[in-house]
Amino acid sequence: MNPRLQSLQPYPFEKLRELFARVTPSPSLAHISLGIGEPRHPTPEFIKRALSESLGKLASYPPTAGGDALRQAIADWLVRRYGLRSIDWKTEVLPVNGSREALFAFAQTVLDPSRGDAVVVCPNPFYQIYEGAALLAGARPHYANAMPERGFAADYASVPGEVWRRTQLLYVCSPGNPTGKVLDLGDWKEIFSLSDRHGFVVASDECYSEVYFNEGSAPLGALQAAAQLGRGFERLAVFSSLSKRSNVPGMRSGFVAGDAAILKAFLLYRTYHGGAMSLAVQDASVAAWRDEAHVRENRRKYAEKFARVTPLIQTALKVEAPEAISALGNLGEIYSSQGKYSDAEPFLAKVLQIKERELGPNSLEVASSASRLALLYYCESKYDKAEPLYKKSFQIRELNLGAKDPVVLQSLQFYAALLRQEGRKEEAQKIEARPARSENSKPLS
Amino acid sequence: MNPRLQSLQPYPFEKLRELFARVTPSPSLAHISLGIGEPRHPTPEFIKRALSESLGKLASYPPTAGGDALRQAIADWLVRRYGLRSIDWKTEVLPVNGSREALFAFAQTVLDPSRGDAVVVCPNPFYQIYEGAALLAGARPHYANAMPERGFAADYASVPGEVWRRTQLLYVCSPGNPTGKVLDLGDWKEIFSLSDRHGFVVASDECYSEVYFNEGSAPLGALQAAAQLGRGFERLAVFSSLSKRSNVPGMRSGFVAGDAAILKAFLLYRTYHGGAMSLAVQDASVAAWRDEAHVRENRRKYAEKFARVTPLIQTALKVEAPEAISALGNLGEIYSSQGKYSDAEPFLAKVLQIKERELGPNSLEVASSASRLALLYYCESKYDKAEPLYKKSFQIRELNLGAKDPVVLQSLQFYAALLRQEGRKEEAQKIEARPARSENSKPLS
Repeated sequence: MNPRLQSLQPYPFEKLRELFARVTPSPSLAHISLGIGEPRHPTPEFIKRALSESLGKLASYPPTAGGDALRQAIADWLVRRYGLRSIDWKTEVLPVNGSREALFAFAQTVLDPSRGDAVVVCPNPFYQIYEGAALLAGARPHYANAMPERGFAADYASVPGEVWRRTQLLYVCSPGNPTGKVLDLGDWKEIFSLSDRHGFVVASDECYSEVYFNEGSAPLGALQAAAQLGRGFERLAVFSSLSKRSNVPGMRSGFVAGDAAILKAFLLYRTYHGGAMSLAVQDASVAAWRDEAHVRENRRKYAEKFARVTPLIQTALKVEAPEAISALGNLGEIYSSQGKYSDAEPFLAKVLQIKERELGPNSLEVASSASRLALLYYCESKYDKAEPLYKKSFQIRELNLGAKDPVVLQSLQFYAALLRQEGRKEEAQKIEARPARSENSKPLS
Repeated sequence: MNPRLQSLQPYPFEKLRELFARVTPSPSLAHISLGIGEPRHPTPEFIKRALSESLGKLASYPPTAGGDALRQAIADWLVRRYGLRSIDWKTEVLPVNGSREALFAFAQTVLDPSRGDAVVVCPNPFYQIYEGAALLAGARPHYANAMPERGFAADYASVPGEVWRRTQLLYVCSPGNPTGKVLDLGDWKEIFSLSDRHGFVVASDECYSEVYFNEGSAPLGALQAAAQLGRGFERLAVFSSLSKRSNVPGMRSGFVAGDAAILKAFLLYRTYHGGAMSLAVQDASVAAWRDEAHVRENRRKYAEKFARVTPLIQTALKVEAPEAISALGNLGEIYSSQGKYSDAEPFLAKVLQIKERELGPNSLEVASSASRLALLYYCESKYDKAEPLYKKSFQIRELNLGAKDPVVLQSLQFYAALLRQEGRKEEAQKIEARPARSENSKPLS
């Protein structure tokens, strides 16, 4: 028997079951499982239909490399999602049966067990597969702590040079499980620089990349970061999955993309490993990667849940305001864009209220939230409610940015337009003709 | 990068593609691929329906161990199929995503890479996964040749004792790929005895177990052999799959069954390996394992194909008679059982003709085939055709077994019954009253 199995931790959910065994829950409360990160939204009908319509293909063996259509759909998605110039679907994309099996098999492919001193660096806390993959490949895991005081970024500076020299693989998770931390371009610059210096492979687990709060500000991905930093995909592999994006954790469909040479070796490993994806699942996956409407709808549902649950949790736990604000604001935007102004109003009002409390009454953030809520009232023709908000927004901006700043001037125009709308022409003219206030007001830091 | 990857053979189908590249096929002939062992029968509708109806479960993560319903269905099937007293579905059965991935992952679980001298014995020729699994687990494969002169049984006597002592895993394939050889109880006695002496694990690949010619004489399985030899499942794991049995190679559904301690370690490995089966596929698999009608129908189709193609192949290649006879005879039986006597007749007549040519006119096998064909004519009321066949059958049996043998007496009664049916009462009475012939005729060896 493989003695490395003895070095494994019991799988966390087994540990959890053991802990539960000693607990007697209140019989008056229903159990809400926060254990497994399982989406609770139903699988979209069009994905199930695509799979259903391809069930005739169950009669054929699927190729390990996946079909052309799926690899092309994934490559197209990568280009769209990450603004890549291009990615070669033949050599830089490989479908896998979910990111979990791929993260494990990848370590078995890239780690050299003949060197007794191999190290795998991974964040801490982390998805337990990283550790097991390292141990079963004969490597030693080294944990780079991700502490709240660094915004949950892994502390690579704390990893000794002697450890880096023996490092063959670095696991990265962004958005991070369980912290939610999204790596920015600076983080990636550090990671690529370490990889270039020490020659290790970077496995970037991005299976949560499509669950975020603000449409238009999707998390940065590793391939995107590489492209923005003007480098290729050398020693980089990205792992993604439909599980969370499209609510199909049971379909086991994901991909690995990046360094063509590594993917070639990974494909060779996989021909023996046996991880080929059913042709029917491939067809359903093509449909899923080619559609974004269901993904936006999925985000809307998450935002709504966050908006509802965050105030409840805040009564018992310290929950960071930005996250809550982001959820509330996003939900307000979604309802606004659907013309549901009365649904949107309490969320945008709540955002303003929290910002005033957390950031002080004269913060530029407060101005922008006030302006946003004013626009909502304006759309509803509730000019009386809009007016004080435009005024507040204008005043805060002028205080921070000075009277000649374009943002301030624009804010002034909104205010004046509103007054005209109300038939208060003279007041509007007066405001527009208003001389610049004293220039000595300084922007707030 | 893992240097063991360099020791792998290119996957055989890639080799084949390379060989094809140098060949210009005749443009007048269509290509019939004999490459991959892919069933060409469609997936049964009820299996597709079962999967379709469970697509709502794509929204949930499947547990690595599989659901209770599937494990119970597999255990029930094993008990029915192999006449086991019982098997514990909780500890002795584990669903896998097809036998291929399981055969590979199993080697990674049971082999100890810390010993530099590990050996994996496998038959030769063999399914290439055995070799790759051994090499990637850091073991050296040793090949036990399966030659025609030994009926394609692997020659374990040729394996040096020094190799057996280092052997940690033995791959066995029955019915054998590509030879079709089915291991009998004697073969299993030898295998178990070697395993007991040297302590290695036996992985029995039985993915072809449900494709055979004669209903009622299904191939012996390893668990069945263990039970018949009065031993438990220690150091034994059987690998099976729905791919060939139920024409669902694209569904990736199979199981491993046997030694509970090994399966426990295998499950631990698999929690990291990530090979969990979709809940929808599990439901479809339960339906498939619980039905035998589609499996019999599948065998009928294979028998029909063998019956049609064997005479064609025999014009160019030496094809062993027993296999062809088996296919022809089985097809005759199937048509007979459906009352399609005119369809059955040419197959039963061909069996008789081949046996007379191959085994000589006085073989007992010829008698039984003559008797079978006679029965067919009898059912069709073609007494004139039946009579000479019953006579021939009776004479051969009397010659071989002596006049007093129960089989001979029964044969005589058939013959007499036929004569009465034709209104030839006196002849019938004469035959029935016939004194035993000389006792000095000896049974043929």
